[in-house]
Amino acid sequence: MPGVPPALYGYFGPEGTFTHQALLTLPSVGRGAVPYATVGQALQAVRDGEVNAALVPIENSVEGGVTATLDNLTYGEPLVITREVLLPVQFPLFVRPGTTLSDIRTVLTHPHAAAQCRTWLSTHLPQATVAEVGSTAGAAVEVANPESRFDAAICARIAGERNHLFPLVDGIADNSEAVTRFVLVSRPGPVGSPTGADKTTLVLFMREDHPGALLEILEQFASRGVNLCRIESRPTKKVLGDYCFSVDAEGHITDARLAEALMGLHRICADVVFLGSYPRADRAEPVIRTGTSNRDYANAAAWLERLLAP
Amino acid sequence: MPGVPPALYGYFGPEGTFTHQALLTLPSVGRGAVPYATVGQALQAVRDGEVNAALVPIENSVEGGVTATLDNLTYGEPLVITREVLLPVQFPLFVRPGTTLSDIRTVLTHPHAAAQCRTWLSTHLPQATVAEVGSTAGAAVEVANPESRFDAAICARIAGERNHLFPLVDGIADNSEAVTRFVLVSRPGPVGSPTGADKTTLVLFMREDHPGALLEILEQFASRGVNLCRIESRPTKKVLGDYCFSVDAEGHITDARLAEALMGLHRICADVVFLGSYPRADRAEPVIRTGTSNRDYANAAAWLERLLAP
Amino acid sequence: MPGVPPALYGYFGPEGTFTHQALLTLPSVGRGAVPYATVGQALQAVRDGEVNAALVPIENSVEGGVTATLDNLTYGEPLVITREVLLPVQFPLFVRPGTTLSDIRTVLTHPHAAAQCRTWLSTHLPQATVAEVGSTAGAAVEVANPESRFDAAICARIAGERNHLFPLVDGIADNSEAVTRFVLVSRPGPVGSPTGADKTTLVLFMREDHPGALLEILEQFASRGVNLCRIESRPTKKVLGDYCFSVDAEGHITDARLAEALMGLHRICADVVFLGSYPRADRAEPVIRTGTSNRDYANAAAWLERLLAP
Amino acid sequence: MPGVPPALYGYFGPEGTFTHQALLTLPSVGRGAVPYATVGQALQAVRDGEVNAALVPIENSVEGGVTATLDNLTYGEPLVITREVLLPVQFPLFVRPGTTLSDIRTVLTHPHAAAQCRTWLSTHLPQATVAEVGSTAGAAVEVANPESRFDAAICARIAGERNHLFPLVDGIADNSEAVTRFVLVSRPGPVGSPTGADKTTLVLFMREDHPGALLEILEQFASRGVNLCRIESRPTKKVLGDYCFSVDAEGHITDARLAEALMGLHRICADVVFLGSYPRADRAEPVIRTGTSNRDYANAAAWLERLLAP
Repeated sequence: MPGVPPALYGYFGPEGTFTHQALLTLPSVGRGAVPYATVGQALQAVRDGEVNAALVPIENSVEGGVTATLDNLTYGEPLVITREVLLPVQFPLFVRPGTTLSDIRTVLTHPHAAAQCRTWLSTHLPQATVAEVGSTAGAAVEVANPESRFDAAICARIAGERNHLFPLVDGIADNSEAVTRFVLVSRPGPVGSPTGADKTTLVLFMREDHPGALLEILEQFASRGVNLCRIESRPTKKVLGDYCFSVDAEGHITDARLAEALMGLHRICADVVFLGSYPRADRAEPVIRTGTSNRDYANAAAWLERLLAP
Repeated sequence: MPGVPPALYGYFGPEGTFTHQALLTLPSVGRGAVPYATVGQALQAVRDGEVNAALVPIENSVEGGVTATLDNLTYGEPLVITREVLLPVQFPLFVRPGTTLSDIRTVLTHPHAAAQCRTWLSTHLPQATVAEVGSTAGAAVEVANPESRFDAAICARIAGERNHLFPLVDGIADNSEAVTRFVLVSRPGPVGSPTGADKTTLVLFMREDHPGALLEILEQFASRGVNLCRIESRPTKKVLGDYCFSVDAEGHITDARLAEALMGLHRICADVVFLGSYPRADRAEPVIRTGTSNRDYANAAAWLERLLAP
Repeated sequence: MPGVPPALYGYFGPEGTFTHQALLTLPSVGRGAVPYATVGQALQAVRDGEVNAALVPIENSVEGGVTATLDNLTYGEPLVITREVLLPVQFPLFVRPGTTLSDIRTVLTHPHAAAQCRTWLSTHLPQATVAEVGSTAGAAVEVANPESRFDAAICARIAGERNHLFPLVDGIADNSEAVTRFVLVSRPGPVGSPTGADKTTLVLFMREDHPGALLEILEQFASRGVNLCRIESRPTKKVLGDYCFSVDAEGHITDARLAEALMGLHRICADVVFLGSYPRADRAEPVIRTGTSNRDYANAAAWLERLLAP
Repeated sequence: MPGVPPALYGYFGPEGTFTHQALLTLPSVGRGAVPYATVGQALQAVRDGEVNAALVPIENSVEGGVTATLDNLTYGEPLVITREVLLPVQFPLFVRPGTTLSDIRTVLTHPHAAAQCRTWLSTHLPQATVAEVGSTAGAAVEVANPESRFDAAICARIAGERNHLFPLVDGIADNSEAVTRFVLVSRPGPVGSPTGADKTTLVLFMREDHPGALLEILEQFASRGVNLCRIESRPTKKVLGDYCFSVDAEGHITDARLAEALMGLHRICADVVFLGSYPRADRAEPVIRTGTSNRDYANAAAWLERLLAP
């Protein structure tokens, strides 16, 4: 891709979103990050070579995009996940410098953020009206305007800081344990090396829907000792009532047990979309069941060889 | 519940949302439907006896609320689903009477609706700016104001009609096959009768996370010939890394095969939350595998009796 | 059954067989035990009310009869096992009083006994010829005759003693760990009480033979936490290539987990033949998996009741 | 093995047994077949290079030996099965030429043969006494002696013919469908080519005995679409209560699905004894489930390669 600088990243924007904040936690990201208005545009930019990779939300996103991400990766031209980023969902309350809690009459934010802060708002700002815009980043831009009719914004920390707002209260979410998961997506290339704490993302299309069809799919994992981190049935685009499964499996495609499970799935599924093997953000290492290590697989293969030609 | 009229419904509002439109498809809903600002408030109103039931989104909602619904039903005081409603996601473009396509300079809608109509908008209204508000219903109200600076709203049909707007274009969603699923939720009571095409919603908390734990849970269904319509792993609120499963199973709690599967799950799971057996909106009847009908169960029980006392 | 004394036993004879010896280990057996020439005749005597019960070999018998027992119980008029007896296969060498090892020129026994003592015989009696008869008991009778041309008999202890022979060497079997298993068989009646260490014997006829058919049968046990002690596929009498399974399962028909497994098998199998629940001879108690005790089953049933009518 | 002629066979003798008759159905067997008194001696002769191969009974043998065969192959120095032979169990009644049915006062045979012809004998020869010897072949030799006190022998056809006896009645077995299975056993060498209708014999030692242990083993077959022809649990020699499984699986070790199942078993079992892949005597071809052909396996492997290095 001549002319593309080594690590130009796209992301689901605009500037100042939670996705942007998550992107800046990656060590190699410089100032050249490019916001895209939609997940689809960010991913297309990767396919077109405009950027080397793009960060998009894939689970529990405040600002939406999850379904778009899953669908685009499943049905679009092949892309792979090379990294995941977890970001605690924290909502600071930002104001223009000098504003105090009792000054606040109007709060601006994204509808999902408003919903997640409702208890705090009704308790601590019962007098305030909450207005909603399309992005938390937009709320910060608006409030930063000294002539704005809005007094406070609920937004990502990065949006407040970039707009020189003051963090009046640190985290006002009703549930402080939520985490958004983002993935860094690239064009397919040689799969990265295993780190010992990896995850592999797949979409599995069933051949037919009968009692036990899901079980047969899961047996492909279980009979090789592969644990699942996430499973979600999703209707397919083609026919109402047909299902596919979006799955995160523990391990790396170069782990023998996962490689064999993948080949097994390829054989029994109507289609298997491989969306990448990449390091787990939580660094959790899998428990390797007896008989499922790479060495166990190598020993079994050597044993078979000896049987064939003693 | 003295004083409550026979069928007073709450819903995830405001007036004019897709949830509101879905509610009006129910035969018995009169004018007394009550909007609530959040899913949580709508469900609390059911618990408090303010309304008999509430309609809330549970899958693929344009206006959000799905996670709130799942979490509230899972962790809140017991409620049960008694009905489901499917609504195709169609976005008409509404304008004030007299406005033509070429007049439109500004379009107002919810961010998710904007995202789902992006291709149509850039093709047919390249000149227009798209602004976002917290609800599609609010967009309709704003555009209905003759002095509004916005020319068009993307919103539910009901919102356009109630605000006396004109449906200039029927459906402008990029993917016309999407469907939102809503559920009608009541306080627990005697379970309704089976219709032959029913669905049962459960949340299953695993005892421990090991390769095969999910398989053991699914075997409880498969060994009784019960098919699943939907499965989704979800992190539990308690500990990072623990999972529960949100599941829709084919059949009714009074079907012998499902009853036995439920008892099996109760025995092996840390907890099972029963969220109701109710008629399927699509009326799809299950394929009954050999040996899994109520008659087969009754025959097997009679056989066992004869063995015990010939 | 008027006129039948309370505990008249038949057995696979003649007098002095290992079956006879096993029978005498039962506490209530008096002198009235009746030998039958074949397993089929012994079992028919039970059906005809000639005897209350019969002891026949079912596993690893020295003197044969195992296949006859399995087939007769599977395909004949219903009978049930009420007890099992294990007898170590020990072969003493009996001689007429006064005979020494170096006197022995000829040894008489059943062909299977001869086969199992071959190493000892060729080591310690290299000079002796081994002749074979139809039963070890018959060998003892022959050797007891002072004019017999045979010097020694390999037979059950009971046969040697009853014929006043002298046990010259205690146990001469090449494999001293073998055990024969016998079962006491009665007409069907109320099933005996569970003892906490029980076994249930079944014959399972498959509906069809496909990869996974056996798996489906075994899942009926595993999904209820029932362990198997023995499994053996056997061709059915009807069609070449069809199989049934002869199975011993841990537990008693009145254990909830086994009762549910039995009903599950009744529903998916072409036929299930129940051959009795009875105390294990080895008194080994099963490991009860979490969620599979009678109390767990009762709790699950009570929970289901509460769901149906809160 | 210098000096050994190309196809010298041992068998479980003496001359004239059913095993001998089965051996003569093999095309390449000449006059050089060598009888051995026991299964153990026949198999040891293979190990010692005295013969190239030996035929021994492995299922439903009239003359015993099955347990000896299974144990010797399981625990002895490695040998492999290269062929199987099925022989219908037919018992002709042989007499000296000139003897008629009404002349017969005494019948001589092996105890198992006597048991299997009891109904015929009591119906057609009610006046006759049945005496038993250690082999049906020995009965034929005895009756062939013009001065014998026995009038008839029940024995293999080959024994009657070799002793110039006359087949008075063709088949007198009460169950005319029984079949004995024999296997031809050799020293391990390069495995023979697959024929498309093959069988593989294994002994599987479990790591531990818990509900589901057998299921895990069978899942290794089922998850690769391999059907079982025979399964039998057998106590191990080492510890009472531990089990191993004697298994015949459909297919050949060079079939990809069976090879992968074998490696899977090697990884989860305490031990796997491979006893050979060989043509099925009944020439029954397996039903190849979708996704389990060699081509499917090759395609899956190629797909995996492409994922690793696009």
